[in-house]
Amino acid sequence: MKMYDIIQKKKKGQALSDHEIEFFIKGYTDGSIPDYQASALLMAICFMGMTDEETVTLTNAMADSGDRVDLSCFGNLSADKHSTGGVGDKTSLIVAPIVASLGGKVTKMSGRGLGHTGGTVDKLESIPGYRVNLTPEEFLSQVEKVGMAVVGQSGNLTPADKKLYALRDVTATVDNIPLITSSIMSKKLAAGSHNIVLDVKVGSGAFMKTPDEATELAQKMVKIGKDCNRNMAALITNMDIPLGNNVGNSLEVVEAIRVLKGELKNDLYEVCVALATTMVELIFSLQRNEAEQKVKNAIESGDAFRKMKEWINAQGGNADYIENTDLFEQSKYSLTVKSVKEGYISSMNVEKIGMTAVTLGAGRRVATDTIDYSAGIIIHKKTGEYVKENQDLCTLYSNNNSSLKEAEKQYLEAVSISSNRSETNPLIYDIIK
Amino acid sequence: MKMYDIIQKKKKGQALSDHEIEFFIKGYTDGSIPDYQASALLMAICFMGMTDEETVTLTNAMADSGDRVDLSCFGNLSADKHSTGGVGDKTSLIVAPIVASLGGKVTKMSGRGLGHTGGTVDKLESIPGYRVNLTPEEFLSQVEKVGMAVVGQSGNLTPADKKLYALRDVTATVDNIPLITSSIMSKKLAAGSHNIVLDVKVGSGAFMKTPDEATELAQKMVKIGKDCNRNMAALITNMDIPLGNNVGNSLEVVEAIRVLKGELKNDLYEVCVALATTMVELIFSLQRNEAEQKVKNAIESGDAFRKMKEWINAQGGNADYIENTDLFEQSKYSLTVKSVKEGYISSMNVEKIGMTAVTLGAGRRVATDTIDYSAGIIIHKKTGEYVKENQDLCTLYSNNNSSLKEAEKQYLEAVSISSNRSETNPLIYDIIK
Repeated sequence: MKMYDIIQKKKKGQALSDHEIEFFIKGYTDGSIPDYQASALLMAICFMGMTDEETVTLTNAMADSGDRVDLSCFGNLSADKHSTGGVGDKTSLIVAPIVASLGGKVTKMSGRGLGHTGGTVDKLESIPGYRVNLTPEEFLSQVEKVGMAVVGQSGNLTPADKKLYALRDVTATVDNIPLITSSIMSKKLAAGSHNIVLDVKVGSGAFMKTPDEATELAQKMVKIGKDCNRNMAALITNMDIPLGNNVGNSLEVVEAIRVLKGELKNDLYEVCVALATTMVELIFSLQRNEAEQKVKNAIESGDAFRKMKEWINAQGGNADYIENTDLFEQSKYSLTVKSVKEGYISSMNVEKIGMTAVTLGAGRRVATDTIDYSAGIIIHKKTGEYVKENQDLCTLYSNNNSSLKEAEKQYLEAVSISSNRSETNPLIYDIIK
Repeated sequence: MKMYDIIQKKKKGQALSDHEIEFFIKGYTDGSIPDYQASALLMAICFMGMTDEETVTLTNAMADSGDRVDLSCFGNLSADKHSTGGVGDKTSLIVAPIVASLGGKVTKMSGRGLGHTGGTVDKLESIPGYRVNLTPEEFLSQVEKVGMAVVGQSGNLTPADKKLYALRDVTATVDNIPLITSSIMSKKLAAGSHNIVLDVKVGSGAFMKTPDEATELAQKMVKIGKDCNRNMAALITNMDIPLGNNVGNSLEVVEAIRVLKGELKNDLYEVCVALATTMVELIFSLQRNEAEQKVKNAIESGDAFRKMKEWINAQGGNADYIENTDLFEQSKYSLTVKSVKEGYISSMNVEKIGMTAVTLGAGRRVATDTIDYSAGIIIHKKTGEYVKENQDLCTLYSNNNSSLKEAEKQYLEAVSISSNRSETNPLIYDIIK
């Protein structure tokens, strides 16, 4: 079998056989197939696509390229969620303790932030003592005892995906549904959970810009996951507007705590309830309304909040910070951004707002940048709201005073104000099962 | 400027700017752009194409990536021909002396054979003493005195094409009209001739399998060459059947000599007359019938044959071999292949016949293989001819006795015999100016 023939076959629009796909993934992972042949195949896939059968094979081959986590000890209770990434997306911090408090076994491996999107692991590291790396034994033992663990990606999971993703990132071959599907789903398969809920973001701050694209991706991922014998569901949620009001690491933890305490019933709350409900539905085979009632009760009763403290404590974090969020270090400098005119906020460029947070020190331009955990943005007015001239739009926080002016400029550019109130898109477009 | 953005732009089907194309070629040649980004762009070009403007820019950028031969001392008399490659194609050996004998300045750089197609340089090296490498001064001086030189590719001509072609060859991105055009035409531009005649082969032994594809390529190359201020023409010629009767290095030289002597008036003669006529038309701005008369006279008068001897002698070859072809070393072994049934030869798989010659030792499977100059095939019956059972189809020659049986089997597989006489395609499909 020759890689040349595989490229040629895909270029002609033909479906690759299982054997061909496995040959490619094995050869690319072990280095016997060079980058330049892999990138040619990836580009051909961008133009000619892959069938569902090919995508399943690709996903499994990538999942099999490294270790797989064995969660069989948790039977059908293991659960995972994945977001395609957005700004202000702290849902994992909320959804995981809700589901764990209801008896699910939530095993979540999360990434670090890069560019305009933050990473769950960075957010958790703003809590003093929190350990993002657990040994496999510690991980399983904590999930058994506490019902959940959220760790960084470690071990030799899906090396094929790591290598392929790095290549796609520099060859303009990221935006392809079968390739995105296999990248995300191979990690989810290798991570081992039986129940998987995906949060596919759509809008100006998301990779998927239109509901149609997002729906296509969500449907594909659900189909592929089911074909690989997982319980699957996906939500299509809005990322035309940052989720919640806080952007930045400790700021997001604080907002998550407020939702878990039942203090906030904003868009973040709604998306978290929908995600948690879907996970509970899948894990326990419940009707949606019954699952939703359980989820809301978990918040109202304080069970979910107590579960968060238990989890943070179990994983080495100082749970006093969860109880009293005033303990979080405050940024030395802040600046409140004022509206320069009166009108309705007609749109927010979410990617630009994410980059404003990066300017403030809350994120990374390149993977080696360090993070200012207290830096970020508290948004006071969002799309659809009315503002007067000179009214507060947001407050910027940073330990780097000189970044505030640039961030203010960026933020103002990101917010459009119009005399007419325009319609906003739904918060949750669809739930796909 | 970033290569990523260039790939992305082409992937979206947009035309690249001059600056972008030049950035790519410069960066790829100097190694600052890696293979994997180049191959992704090449694949995107295969799907999205290039405009004529882009192709001109690409061609010029590639021609400018190395040295350009300066033939300005020959004014508008310099002439070059290029064949896209076939089996039994020894036209350069015939056309060049004809044109030189009529006052043209033929400056030809040729390649070596690989796979089923032979190379002009290999054929000439079957003549003892022939020097394929001349210094630039020797080259120009010989063209000035004799009117022609045929040398191997040397110096730093089109390094971008060398590197890109090697990459296309392993990434299934060869078969794209703009890329083929820029590869061929950049070499022709760098080689410096003012008048360029292309022989685009079409058929089972050619890269272009259909007249439509060949015409598209020919039109594109003529257009691009004209846009780069060259006198251009292209012939579309048949490669469903080997050209002439001899395949193999010294065997092809012998056949070329017979055509130049006026002894053979076969398909090879016709194609050579058409090619030479087109070159003479371009160089001297003559009417076609006048040019054709001059070409035929050059053969009949013996001028072209004398020019061949003068050329071979000037370039260090032993011209006695041209005068008396019996001097060429004969293969130790030969085998005459007989027809296994009666009927019309309905088709010949030319690629397979080329590979039969490789089996006999006349060509290379890989670039490092050595060549048996006397090995090859003399074809006795070609497509459209009637054969009786056990009648001679061809004679195989080799210095490796054990190759003959395998070659016989290959040859018989390459020839189809049918009870009905099928129509054959034209020898010369079209002339594009």
